[in-house]
Amino acid sequence: MRRAIHLISAFIFIISAISAHAQSDSLPSWNDSAAKKSIVDFVSRVTAQGAPDFVPVEQRIAVFDNDGTLWCEQPIYFQFAFAFDRIRAIAPQHPEWKTTQPYKAILDGDMKAFAASGEKGLLQMVAAAHSGMTTDEFSRTVIEWTATARHPRFNRPYTQLVYQPMLELLAYLRANGFKTFIVSGGGVEFMRPWVEKAYGIPPEQVVGSSGTVALQMDAAGKPSLLKTSKIEFIDDGPGKPVGINRFIGRRPIFAFGNSDGDLQMLQWTAAGAGTRFMGLVHHTDAEREYAYDRKSKIGKLDKALDEATVRGWAVIDMKKDWKTIFP
Amino acid sequence: MRRAIHLISAFIFIISAISAHAQSDSLPSWNDSAAKKSIVDFVSRVTAQGAPDFVPVEQRIAVFDNDGTLWCEQPIYFQFAFAFDRIRAIAPQHPEWKTTQPYKAILDGDMKAFAASGEKGLLQMVAAAHSGMTTDEFSRTVIEWTATARHPRFNRPYTQLVYQPMLELLAYLRANGFKTFIVSGGGVEFMRPWVEKAYGIPPEQVVGSSGTVALQMDAAGKPSLLKTSKIEFIDDGPGKPVGINRFIGRRPIFAFGNSDGDLQMLQWTAAGAGTRFMGLVHHTDAEREYAYDRKSKIGKLDKALDEATVRGWAVIDMKKDWKTIFP
Repeated sequence: MRRAIHLISAFIFIISAISAHAQSDSLPSWNDSAAKKSIVDFVSRVTAQGAPDFVPVEQRIAVFDNDGTLWCEQPIYFQFAFAFDRIRAIAPQHPEWKTTQPYKAILDGDMKAFAASGEKGLLQMVAAAHSGMTTDEFSRTVIEWTATARHPRFNRPYTQLVYQPMLELLAYLRANGFKTFIVSGGGVEFMRPWVEKAYGIPPEQVVGSSGTVALQMDAAGKPSLLKTSKIEFIDDGPGKPVGINRFIGRRPIFAFGNSDGDLQMLQWTAAGAGTRFMGLVHHTDAEREYAYDRKSKIGKLDKALDEATVRGWAVIDMKKDWKTIFP
Repeated sequence: MRRAIHLISAFIFIISAISAHAQSDSLPSWNDSAAKKSIVDFVSRVTAQGAPDFVPVEQRIAVFDNDGTLWCEQPIYFQFAFAFDRIRAIAPQHPEWKTTQPYKAILDGDMKAFAASGEKGLLQMVAAAHSGMTTDEFSRTVIEWTATARHPRFNRPYTQLVYQPMLELLAYLRANGFKTFIVSGGGVEFMRPWVEKAYGIPPEQVVGSSGTVALQMDAAGKPSLLKTSKIEFIDDGPGKPVGINRFIGRRPIFAFGNSDGDLQMLQWTAAGAGTRFMGLVHHTDAEREYAYDRKSKIGKLDKALDEATVRGWAVIDMKKDWKTIFP
């Protein structure tokens, strides 16, 4: 037994040495800026056993917005690109769409006419693209789309437009005992089929917007879940703390967003006791990605940027802080 | 480096030997019956690397009903006992309750009058006991109740009326790479404060019924979540597959229940591809716990018992299969 303990001690020593080395450059795509330092300092403080800011493993909950925080969201939210493609794909089964807005505009590629259909048209389009099939069928549709569709500017699959520095951050947090969650305004059923492969985040750690599903039984008594067109939950703005409470049931100690839709999630995270980390990705790099903030229709960052400044939250300057953008 | 690999191999060998020994009696409170054998056989089959029934770790999702499956549910659902206690505790702030049903009946201890108020009275009572405070305040209330309230027959804290054989089963599954979830008709906010300590299941792995919560900001800009009296989701019967889809997003391969409210969860689990395990706890032990099934108002087990027989699902006979009931 004494020999066993010796072996175990030696093993633990070796593993510690390896992991200490790994930690020293676990964020290689981040420049050595104040932003990177603030992340590493925070993680060191909450993981140092016996230190005043120590947080037990089970309370190390980290939440990330998705669009614009973990992957690109321009020129339109990728889920809208999916929905447009889906409308075109199923149009043959809906001959009436040739003469009905907003579908006609999409089929004609007339984005001006589509924009004229306003929010109502947008919601109709999203509902039509996301309902009327089972959850299993929808999941297969999403997987197929991520395998075939290409981003108009970068000409890559959308799932390859994830941010390399954020992938490293997710892995770094997990290596330090954090459980990483997505808390996104995007559809939960749209994200779940691919996030595990893309981010290492399992489907059960994804919080998002959702439509109502209904249990149905076929003639043989086999159950399935039908996606209806009724909106059930919008996980955006004030919905984010609600979604965190509903799906996670614990307050995060680490939160990252990039837009005003993430403000309440950051406020909710900040309002807990003890030390916490709040961060924003600021899109400042028109050359390698996009540059937008206060006036953007997609991913508008205005109030949250002011509050971050006042409260000393970390603001990542994409151009200055990130060595690489995409993997 | 070669020496390091030697040490690591030796260490892994020791750990394997210890864990193999642990597995051989990881269900000590279960008699060596067909039920126990079916569980151990299933776990062996899905965890044997390279075997035809092997299931990768990330897909080893196990779901458990709570009331009557993991803890006792007689003579009334424990959450109702909590709600009655809560009504009595806050009655001084509601002088009008002295003359208003169903509150008057509860304060007078007149269960016949309370029963006469029907489902409407029950829902009013539950809503009054579970709303009008923040999620943090409610959580503290629940913790206080679990520390002080006693079960009328067993005279123990309710959280000590969990089933020892099921605690062993949860631990056994987790030791074999399963992620264990609760999927209960009970309130998610009522379960989350104590399930981690009682079952080793973290709050984020609890699916349950819920009321709507609303984000509010105080004058200092500090956010909180107010519990309203509006019902948002009932995680029972056909709601269980819906809840599993919404909160977990993956189909379980292992499911345990005890009543007709679990039937659709078991059907949903059974309908997936590959090998799966479906089990029911049958309450057959009036001496050590309770005996009830087809005619019980609480935890009625009728249709699900028939379906279990037809489909060969495991039915645990509490009296014969369990050596001990409570820890």
